[in-house]
Amino acid sequence: MTSPPALDRLRVVLVDTRNPLNIGAVARAMSNLGFRHLRVVNPYEVAFQGARSAVGASAVLASAEIFSTVGDAVADCSLVVGTVSVGPRDLQHTLQRLEAAAPLIRARLALGSCALLFGSEKFGLSNKDLSHCHWLTHIPTREEHASMNLGQAVAICLYELIRDADALVVPAGKFLASSAEMERITETLLVALRASEYPKLNSSDSFHNAVRRMVRRFHMHSGDAEFLLGMLRQMVWKMEKKK
Amino acid sequence: MTSPPALDRLRVVLVDTRNPLNIGAVARAMSNLGFRHLRVVNPYEVAFQGARSAVGASAVLASAEIFSTVGDAVADCSLVVGTVSVGPRDLQHTLQRLEAAAPLIRARLALGSCALLFGSEKFGLSNKDLSHCHWLTHIPTREEHASMNLGQAVAICLYELIRDADALVVPAGKFLASSAEMERITETLLVALRASEYPKLNSSDSFHNAVRRMVRRFHMHSGDAEFLLGMLRQMVWKMEKKK
Repeated sequence: MTSPPALDRLRVVLVDTRNPLNIGAVARAMSNLGFRHLRVVNPYEVAFQGARSAVGASAVLASAEIFSTVGDAVADCSLVVGTVSVGPRDLQHTLQRLEAAAPLIRARLALGSCALLFGSEKFGLSNKDLSHCHWLTHIPTREEHASMNLGQAVAICLYELIRDADALVVPAGKFLASSAEMERITETLLVALRASEYPKLNSSDSFHNAVRRMVRRFHMHSGDAEFLLGMLRQMVWKMEKKK
Repeated sequence: MTSPPALDRLRVVLVDTRNPLNIGAVARAMSNLGFRHLRVVNPYEVAFQGARSAVGASAVLASAEIFSTVGDAVADCSLVVGTVSVGPRDLQHTLQRLEAAAPLIRARLALGSCALLFGSEKFGLSNKDLSHCHWLTHIPTREEHASMNLGQAVAICLYELIRDADALVVPAGKFLASSAEMERITETLLVALRASEYPKLNSSDSFHNAVRRMVRRFHMHSGDAEFLLGMLRQMVWKMEKKK
């Protein structure tokens, strides 16, 4: 997958992050999902340098930019979206569920840079931070346990941005067994049952139909049909040889 | 948000996880997103106990179940989906992008328990682990950096499952065969092949895995499993009697 140019206009902005593992995790998810521009506002300096020098730290971390205020970090962005876990706080902003937020953000990325803001692990975004935002979004977590780990929250938000509605079409992939192949299996299975003296075997249509229906329900690939037919034929050979 | 009953049938299965922080992160994401049933297979014991006793460890961790094999961990599940980062490995299974996988999993949760398998941080799922899976799914990460952090990968997969709550299917009629039933069929089929002097039979793991995968692909109802098992047992009886 290549990262579409418009998505390259997203800036992930971490405000007051304290844990270097979280900064590293954010950078890794960005790299996995095709985002490059990380900005950190007022990080705990030791944490940030720790993350940046960690083994396997990505190009994302190496090129991360440091700002001292949210205002500076979003200065070049035409849309600023804050992330919140829905809590007791009275929100002054429009709040969108992430599924609804993503197409709005994608549409705006076509027009210019956008920032997605994430607050500190402990307190989230402050009211002052929020005042820089055009609107807010949240991941639909449980009310009883709404607050997510920072690295996981960023991963989910970015995933929603690259999530492709076109992919909902189930790929065709392998060929399914034809009716003729399934009928050969049905017939061979009946021969095998006869050879095995299967007690419930009878020549009625209803028994034959039950076996045929079962084989059809197996939703068999062409290769599986051949594999299974070979097995059954071998068993038939063995049972008939010994008669 | 309350967790819809069907989603409560999902089992998140972590195989060979080594890092306690990852186990904790998985449990937290499950709790955030409304999933309760965590199963760990062969965890590094110190890591697992560390995660379980961590401050803030959730109810999910407290009730997590430990298994020594994947087979045991998925025995009661009628659908087992493995997660992979798309890499150089030749896959023997159908692979679905996560967006396409989620509606299939939700539909099957309406019929019975499903397992979502995640491999170790370093190696992912082994070929043997994969042989227990009906099909595989992957998060559409960049090819150049495909492998995600475990906690983030689980968070994204679970998010995709709850993403569209309206899409949840109302439970229908029939029950699908459990993994334990399918494993009995696999074993009995292998016994039958041995008794039949099947020429391609060998005791290698790869042959065993191929048979196991084929049986999983059959999409079997519980009644079919019983029907087929009776047939195979009869053939085994017949072939062994005549020796």
